[in-house]
Amino acid sequence: MFDGGGRPALLRRINESTVLARLREAGPLRLADLSDRTELSRQTVAQVVASLVDDGLVEYVEAGRAGPRPPGRPARLVRLRPDAAHVVGIDIGPHRTLVVVADLTGRIVAEDRGDSSRIRTRDGMLAHVRDHVRDALAAGGVRPETVRAVGAGTPGIVEAEHGVVVEAATMPDWRSIDLADRLRAAFGCPVFVENDVNLAVLAERWHGPGRDAGILVAVQWGGRVGAGILVGDRLLRGAHGAAGEVGFLPADPSACEPGPTGRTTLGPFERRVGTAAIAELTGEHSVDDPAGATLSAARDGDPAALTVVDTIAERFVRGLAPLIIILDPDLVVIGGGVTRAGPPLLEAVERHLRGRTLVRPTLALSALGDRAVALGAARLALDDVERRLFTVR
Amino acid sequence: MFDGGGRPALLRRINESTVLARLREAGPLRLADLSDRTELSRQTVAQVVASLVDDGLVEYVEAGRAGPRPPGRPARLVRLRPDAAHVVGIDIGPHRTLVVVADLTGRIVAEDRGDSSRIRTRDGMLAHVRDHVRDALAAGGVRPETVRAVGAGTPGIVEAEHGVVVEAATMPDWRSIDLADRLRAAFGCPVFVENDVNLAVLAERWHGPGRDAGILVAVQWGGRVGAGILVGDRLLRGAHGAAGEVGFLPADPSACEPGPTGRTTLGPFERRVGTAAIAELTGEHSVDDPAGATLSAARDGDPAALTVVDTIAERFVRGLAPLIIILDPDLVVIGGGVTRAGPPLLEAVERHLRGRTLVRPTLALSALGDRAVALGAARLALDDVERRLFTVR
Repeated sequence: MFDGGGRPALLRRINESTVLARLREAGPLRLADLSDRTELSRQTVAQVVASLVDDGLVEYVEAGRAGPRPPGRPARLVRLRPDAAHVVGIDIGPHRTLVVVADLTGRIVAEDRGDSSRIRTRDGMLAHVRDHVRDALAAGGVRPETVRAVGAGTPGIVEAEHGVVVEAATMPDWRSIDLADRLRAAFGCPVFVENDVNLAVLAERWHGPGRDAGILVAVQWGGRVGAGILVGDRLLRGAHGAAGEVGFLPADPSACEPGPTGRTTLGPFERRVGTAAIAELTGEHSVDDPAGATLSAARDGDPAALTVVDTIAERFVRGLAPLIIILDPDLVVIGGGVTRAGPPLLEAVERHLRGRTLVRPTLALSALGDRAVALGAARLALDDVERRLFTVR
Repeated sequence: MFDGGGRPALLRRINESTVLARLREAGPLRLADLSDRTELSRQTVAQVVASLVDDGLVEYVEAGRAGPRPPGRPARLVRLRPDAAHVVGIDIGPHRTLVVVADLTGRIVAEDRGDSSRIRTRDGMLAHVRDHVRDALAAGGVRPETVRAVGAGTPGIVEAEHGVVVEAATMPDWRSIDLADRLRAAFGCPVFVENDVNLAVLAERWHGPGRDAGILVAVQWGGRVGAGILVGDRLLRGAHGAAGEVGFLPADPSACEPGPTGRTTLGPFERRVGTAAIAELTGEHSVDDPAGATLSAARDGDPAALTVVDTIAERFVRGLAPLIIILDPDLVVIGGGVTRAGPPLLEAVERHLRGRTLVRPTLALSALGDRAVALGAARLALDDVERRLFTVR
């Protein structure tokens, strides 16, 4: 399209982005095909590709190595190097840390988990995060200099634009932190920080059943309850970054009392349906995983555990009905620890929802387990890398 | 920018749109200024303007007639003709119809009201609408052939994409209607149909205090209660067109019972706070305007009426709190008949909201009275006309 003349640096970047975008769409291509698809001359394409090879973004391969071999002399194909760039996604939580590393195609090439439950200071948490990112990169054989963006999720209210954690009641010493700045200093690349539940909904859009849902809600249901809301491709963050804090919904009749005045306690809804409430129903006393035995037993069909799941599902529906009435979502994906109860939980939620709302969304259990937040963080980082590599700014 | 060569019809349209867009931004301009601003040659601009004059879209005026007169020979300025195009906005309701006519600048040039309370059939309603549009155009001296788009709002669930009313429980014989098709046949121009409350929120964005609110909610509070939700410039319609049907929220403790099963009755929330509920509190028996006397008395400071308003405001807040928790909106504009109680109503709602939600939106009473839906309908139509005239497709 732009084949010379004018501002050379800009033209070169336009041509490079165009070549990269075509290779991303079409997979490996011969130079001649790349010339056709980019509407650039063969000579310009060859120059652009040479420069991209120098930058480590593309490479030449023999046709036989990248697909079925045509007859005759093997053609040289140009392809994107998946390992040309990597992103890191980090889930920073009060109990554990999960780091995932993805290549340019979005494939997860490494993962690392850490126990954060004994960390009491922000500096301790930041050092812990750095260590586990280093371990994940080493495990995947990924050179740190190929990491082009980092995404990080944390509980609490986040000013996503500046990457600042305003407050997170569940994490010690975790408020008013320039988290993006601190991580950028550690990793030397762009860093994006987002509320953990907002990242979970991005992951459901990316890897889950939510690809085509116009209004997609991901409810994270564990010790606390929160919802991430996507309207098209736009995260509904709210005026104060507090949209989707459904844990603070009134829970049921007994909870239709004056609401919360601070963020140090659980909200009425999560108090009624979270893992602590389940443990209270069963008399379980495990501190680390208060409802684990009951949830597993329900999945296996244990009658007593199924009764507990039914009770908790009814409370869940009572509390969550307003969200369905207000948003009329296409799809609600339920994730978080409580989903270990599996299909019986989904069945109970669907049954109790009948007749309670004008319209009913499709419901699904998340298939992402406890990886949703880290995957969403990687997606956020990958969006940035793709913007920089494949589009002309 | 494109000054000749290539596909002439497309180029002409690009040039016309460019000239129109600059005139819309800048107001009346001399040909030389128009040439500078469009980056088109003086000769091309003169040709484009001549063609637009023929189409009735622009006109020449003497400088003195369109602004301060510069010294020397009066310059001829080119300006958009406000009357070059008109749009019609229609509010179709069970009790009354309101038609507004706007010119190309968005100024309302005519208005007409009709009583629809005795109409029992869809054909009757369509004839009624046609008559009142005709009357409005006549009153404004607007030639029907200058009407380039029509917007229409109706209660109920609307498939906006196809302009079909799925169902509207409050209107007789008003379900499964190809309303856009029927109105298009009557008016011979593009017609856009939308749920009435969704149009009210568009009007608050356009004419109300909601211009800059990222997440804007307009609650219409009368006999029924509904909310229109704008996320940026995107109407949140919902998977089934039922987003914002807050009348069906649970209302308070006594309403935390199994919810509605159809749309033929009022929802729990609107049953507790609508005008009929107010009348029940006061013993008013007016059928046409069940709460009118109380609302007016409250506005005037009558103590008994203020007590009623306080009660109803508390119920309103209890029911609406989930919307604020879920969306964290920047601004909630309250409109509809109940707002005749004025500032005491707003004060009571704000007071009862304190401490009930994590974050608080700004609240405001609508200043649009009963014109919000018709204005929003005109805005919808004007968006279409502006897309066609001022942008290149």
